[in-house]
Amino acid sequence: MASENYKTAPQPETTTSWEKEPARPPVAQPRPPPASHLALVDVVLRFLLFASALVAVLVMVTSKQTEIVPIPFYPFKAPASAKFTHSPAFIYFVAALSVVGFYGIITSLISLFSLLRPRSCPKVVSHFVIFDVLFLGVVAAATGTAGGVAYIGLKGNSHVGWRKICNVYGDFCRHIGASVAVSLFASVVLVLLVLFSIRSLTKKIPK
Amino acid sequence: MASENYKTAPQPETTTSWEKEPARPPVAQPRPPPASHLALVDVVLRFLLFASALVAVLVMVTSKQTEIVPIPFYPFKAPASAKFTHSPAFIYFVAALSVVGFYGIITSLISLFSLLRPRSCPKVVSHFVIFDVLFLGVVAAATGTAGGVAYIGLKGNSHVGWRKICNVYGDFCRHIGASVAVSLFASVVLVLLVLFSIRSLTKKIPK
Repeated sequence: MASENYKTAPQPETTTSWEKEPARPPVAQPRPPPASHLALVDVVLRFLLFASALVAVLVMVTSKQTEIVPIPFYPFKAPASAKFTHSPAFIYFVAALSVVGFYGIITSLISLFSLLRPRSCPKVVSHFVIFDVLFLGVVAAATGTAGGVAYIGLKGNSHVGWRKICNVYGDFCRHIGASVAVSLFASVVLVLLVLFSIRSLTKKIPK
Repeated sequence: MASENYKTAPQPETTTSWEKEPARPPVAQPRPPPASHLALVDVVLRFLLFASALVAVLVMVTSKQTEIVPIPFYPFKAPASAKFTHSPAFIYFVAALSVVGFYGIITSLISLFSLLRPRSCPKVVSHFVIFDVLFLGVVAAATGTAGGVAYIGLKGNSHVGWRKICNVYGDFCRHIGASVAVSLFASVVLVLLVLFSIRSLTKKIPK
């Protein structure tokens, strides 16, 4: 709708006015140019990153399950719990996804603020891509670590005598698997964020 | 040295001549402009990526170790091997690093060719950053997966009864650890490649 108002109003050389008058104060431009679709996609993807990281952490930390399992003294059984703190891989997963979720909500708010007021912080959002690349590595590594350990829990490893546990702790394994899947989605969101940042950089380069 | 010749020779408006004469044939420009340092860094980093992926794969596939270990029939012992094919995580690791090493040598050759003949394929190298981002996710996930499984082999997990194997298969574990460390280096190289690509894109944007 804003772009239609632009077309009807008489505005000579609107697109290049900022190049010719760099010292023009912001109060002289009450209506900023319509926001790019890429900026809106950036906000949505960052919120998706926050949401997926939050879901992955919550599903992982609520995975505790207690079952009655046989103990070495044959006829007796005892309750035993499976929870994510029993594996360093899952602890790393929760730590990494918590940091990424925090990063996601902070940057989505800054990106939304930058979308609503484009002249307030023009440079900040373009620098997020550096952290996006770093966090992509962190989230992908966390997903791989948790997935590798979860796969041993699901299938076991007969070569070294690691028995599977998912036949006993089914709910625990379902939580772990869902959490890893959501974390994989967060990795894809981070890849898309980096690619969109590169796309918006490429669009600024003159032909 | 090429830049000094540029300064001494009388060349009016050398830096903007390509903008004003886009239809000038290549034979009229026998001396291309000096290559950017960023392009040289790109070639070196891509070769480092290839070398580190190759080393990681070679160290992993040569990790086989055979030891005399006790078998369930108590007084007897038998030889048993540990090799990377016993774990799906290590197979994924070898597959991922092989693909990345192949990608590294191909792109380093193209990047070197583009460095020597800048006008032959100006757009190709700038598109590598998309695959760099994707392969960063793949290598980071492979590093995390192999690292997570290797950590169980090193420390075991008493909660689920997974015993450690590195006290028996020491050489095998050293190979795995070295391979994961080199793979981590490859991940860092990929992060640097993406950041340098973004940096070179940012330099092309007019102020």
